[in-house]
Amino acid sequence: MTVTLNAKRTLTASSGGRLNLDNINPHVKAAKYAVRGELAVKAEEYRVKLAQGDKSLPFDSVIFANIGNPQQLDQKPISFFRQVLSLLENPSLLEKPEALRTSFGYQQDVIDRAKTLLADVQSVGAYSHSQGAPIIRDSVAKFIEERDGFPANPQDLYLTGGASSGVSTLLNVICDGPSAGVLVPIPQYPLYTATLSLLNAQCVPYHLEEHRAWGTDVNAIRENLAQAKAAGTDVRAIVVINPGNPTGASLSAEDIKGVLDLAAEEKLVVIADEVYQTNVFTGEFISFKKRLRQLQQEVPGKYDNVELASLHSVSKGMVGECGHRGGYFELVGFDPEVAAQVYKYVSIMLCPPVIGQCLVELMVNPPKEGEPSRAVYEKEYNGIRDGLRKRAFALYEAFQRMEGVECQEPQGAMYLFPTITLPPKAVEAAKAENRAADEFYCLRLLDATGVCVVPGSGFGQKENTLHFRTTFLAPGTDWVERIVKFHSEFMAKYK
Amino acid sequence: MTVTLNAKRTLTASSGGRLNLDNINPHVKAAKYAVRGELAVKAEEYRVKLAQGDKSLPFDSVIFANIGNPQQLDQKPISFFRQVLSLLENPSLLEKPEALRTSFGYQQDVIDRAKTLLADVQSVGAYSHSQGAPIIRDSVAKFIEERDGFPANPQDLYLTGGASSGVSTLLNVICDGPSAGVLVPIPQYPLYTATLSLLNAQCVPYHLEEHRAWGTDVNAIRENLAQAKAAGTDVRAIVVINPGNPTGASLSAEDIKGVLDLAAEEKLVVIADEVYQTNVFTGEFISFKKRLRQLQQEVPGKYDNVELASLHSVSKGMVGECGHRGGYFELVGFDPEVAAQVYKYVSIMLCPPVIGQCLVELMVNPPKEGEPSRAVYEKEYNGIRDGLRKRAFALYEAFQRMEGVECQEPQGAMYLFPTITLPPKAVEAAKAENRAADEFYCLRLLDATGVCVVPGSGFGQKENTLHFRTTFLAPGTDWVERIVKFHSEFMAKYK
Repeated sequence: MTVTLNAKRTLTASSGGRLNLDNINPHVKAAKYAVRGELAVKAEEYRVKLAQGDKSLPFDSVIFANIGNPQQLDQKPISFFRQVLSLLENPSLLEKPEALRTSFGYQQDVIDRAKTLLADVQSVGAYSHSQGAPIIRDSVAKFIEERDGFPANPQDLYLTGGASSGVSTLLNVICDGPSAGVLVPIPQYPLYTATLSLLNAQCVPYHLEEHRAWGTDVNAIRENLAQAKAAGTDVRAIVVINPGNPTGASLSAEDIKGVLDLAAEEKLVVIADEVYQTNVFTGEFISFKKRLRQLQQEVPGKYDNVELASLHSVSKGMVGECGHRGGYFELVGFDPEVAAQVYKYVSIMLCPPVIGQCLVELMVNPPKEGEPSRAVYEKEYNGIRDGLRKRAFALYEAFQRMEGVECQEPQGAMYLFPTITLPPKAVEAAKAENRAADEFYCLRLLDATGVCVVPGSGFGQKENTLHFRTTFLAPGTDWVERIVKFHSEFMAKYK
Repeated sequence: MTVTLNAKRTLTASSGGRLNLDNINPHVKAAKYAVRGELAVKAEEYRVKLAQGDKSLPFDSVIFANIGNPQQLDQKPISFFRQVLSLLENPSLLEKPEALRTSFGYQQDVIDRAKTLLADVQSVGAYSHSQGAPIIRDSVAKFIEERDGFPANPQDLYLTGGASSGVSTLLNVICDGPSAGVLVPIPQYPLYTATLSLLNAQCVPYHLEEHRAWGTDVNAIRENLAQAKAAGTDVRAIVVINPGNPTGASLSAEDIKGVLDLAAEEKLVVIADEVYQTNVFTGEFISFKKRLRQLQQEVPGKYDNVELASLHSVSKGMVGECGHRGGYFELVGFDPEVAAQVYKYVSIMLCPPVIGQCLVELMVNPPKEGEPSRAVYEKEYNGIRDGLRKRAFALYEAFQRMEGVECQEPQGAMYLFPTITLPPKAVEAAKAENRAADEFYCLRLLDATGVCVVPGSGFGQKENTLHFRTTFLAPGTDWVERIVKFHSEFMAKYK
């Protein structure tokens, strides 16, 4: 016993304390999350410098185009939502409805909604049911029914702290160890690879088709699946992000059917990340749930065993309330015993933030036609939608003007993900700094212009291709021109 | 390839879909969380029945004494907090300060605080820094400095979604696999054992000393540690809950020193769960950080390598805002490279709820002496504190009257954890139902009275002892008398 103790002491003595980079959880160490990585940290340092009056930088503002954070930039919250939330936070305001109306323009539907929600949750400071407050799950179920034309059951709904925690819950339940694998689109939102790293499970990548507006190619997925199986991976689920992040792609009914066919044949749980469902410029959003129910009607039997988990969030769309950390997922076709384990898992963290849950309710149940807050709601909602579309196309057109840059036409989400072709000298210069070429490019862009974007390597990309992801949330076009000017100088320098 | 495929198909065919109880993550399946388990579910069913007008039950209300959820019961939120939060949710209210004052009694310090917070976070709907908004971490650092008399660095602070998510983060980073172990007090809050189950790490239990008001016995801990090491467990950390949950104990300076001595000698990370730090009836709360800094001054060198993570929360104390999911932890003495990994880990979930972060700021920086909201704040705060103390002692006195029940005098937290000695016939009756005797007792109590408490087995207890945990949050004394009456009938029945 003493020997063991001494041996251990010696081994760790040099590190001072107990923990060091070599003995913490290796899966935490292995996880990568570029959205808030080196570039984001540097951008924040620049922002602080500028705020402190530093004049040494070659730009006067930092543009955080690295993260879909609408209200950090130009987007104003929807008034109806925030009016209701203010009453939920301070219910004593409800004692003077007349003052609320005359001084602050609160309409009766705002007051009514706050009362209805409070009657169920009691206080937004109290824990709710771990799956979320019953009244809120009822509203979400109605929303899904109206959206899809097929019923939804509140018992199958789990409110979450943003979609991220929902994804984490699902992957935690699904993955049973190092041989478990999940098909993940490439490029992808790095939450998926990071969470699989944490779980020590396998990411089985499948490439999206850039030339087909980043659509899915089911044959390519089948190939990747077969390879993974041959290598001993027990592939259990497939992630689809629709509309796409970082690609902005909006999937067709046919593409969705392809994935569901595969899921039915290969018994894969489908994780449909649908947080950008209202950010669609081209065509219409089709939910996986709707498509699944349609197919179940059209081909009786074939799709009966498909398990689908679909996620939504208050963070994106015209709501843009990511700081509130609200969201939900719906389980379709899950074994009730597995669902009970999902419940137990989420109950360990007690419940998602209750005010965020209430915001989910407001998102899925906004003022209706004829209700007093409807006109302002519509005006604000449409204004945000139109602004996003305008900026998406302004950015897209700027990319058309840039040498060696190719970009798919905007379809949805909040992002563009252009390909960049860099001169060999730039690639060499990157190598000399021990950096990926796209990372090198993005760092130079930040240093020169204050515009922060994320290199494609943070999301995954086909070998020998380079990309970056930018949001189109920042106001104005000045920053777009900064990118254009930088790019042309960069290309000239490394020609 | 085809052979493998077919073999797999056959294996899972009987289960319908892909996932079933036997192939999901076994660590999720193994995790136990009694606070929201069978009893809580049954209590909720009774509540719904009563709300629907059911008259068949032998009680007219359900008392949720199973969970520290103050605002579900009697506790009103602090007005200052909620006034500020209402302005953060709807900043357009700030445009009419006069109306806020005259109609709603908002004082100038409420308005000023909302403006200060908004200037930093921009919008509570925007993501913040993953560690939490800078201004809020500054306030927390000042709070810790004033509380302890030793400096705190905002860079060492991580805001969290309640303390639970902080605990999860810390254990995820610390535990590196099945041989990693963490010392956990028994009885304990089951978050610890559940999270260790999820991580497939070892819970190394150490028993608290019931006869010494649930204090810690360092010699007993050393023994458990030695046994665990001998069995091959790499014990990396020790959890201390102070004031205790479920025990309500408040640790002495000497007990805290004992734990820190052990941590220094054995290189154990100390996880100090201090969420009940303001719920102290007897003596004063001493933080682990303060004690550590004192010892570092008193005995230079010995404690230099101690790593401490201490947690706090808005959920408990006189704040009681658990539905808002706010909290923080402070890292002391951690290797900066490890801290960087903690940052990366929390950044994957982007940021804790921003409104919950703001509530943390309000908790640690309430209205000061002489400020306009101070008088009301003090009255409300003291009212809640006195009410808790009164109820704690009422419950304690009721337990004194009950045959076979022994309870330590209330010291802190929100709980009492009495020992119950049940007649052999009751133990047999429990066995016949395949239940632990304390679980059997608590189920009968719920069925007969509507009072929901948690059996001691949910927290861990010494072999051959039985307990239950009850909060003392529910208003009135009627429900306490329901327990007394039930207990005497139960004892008579199984005599």
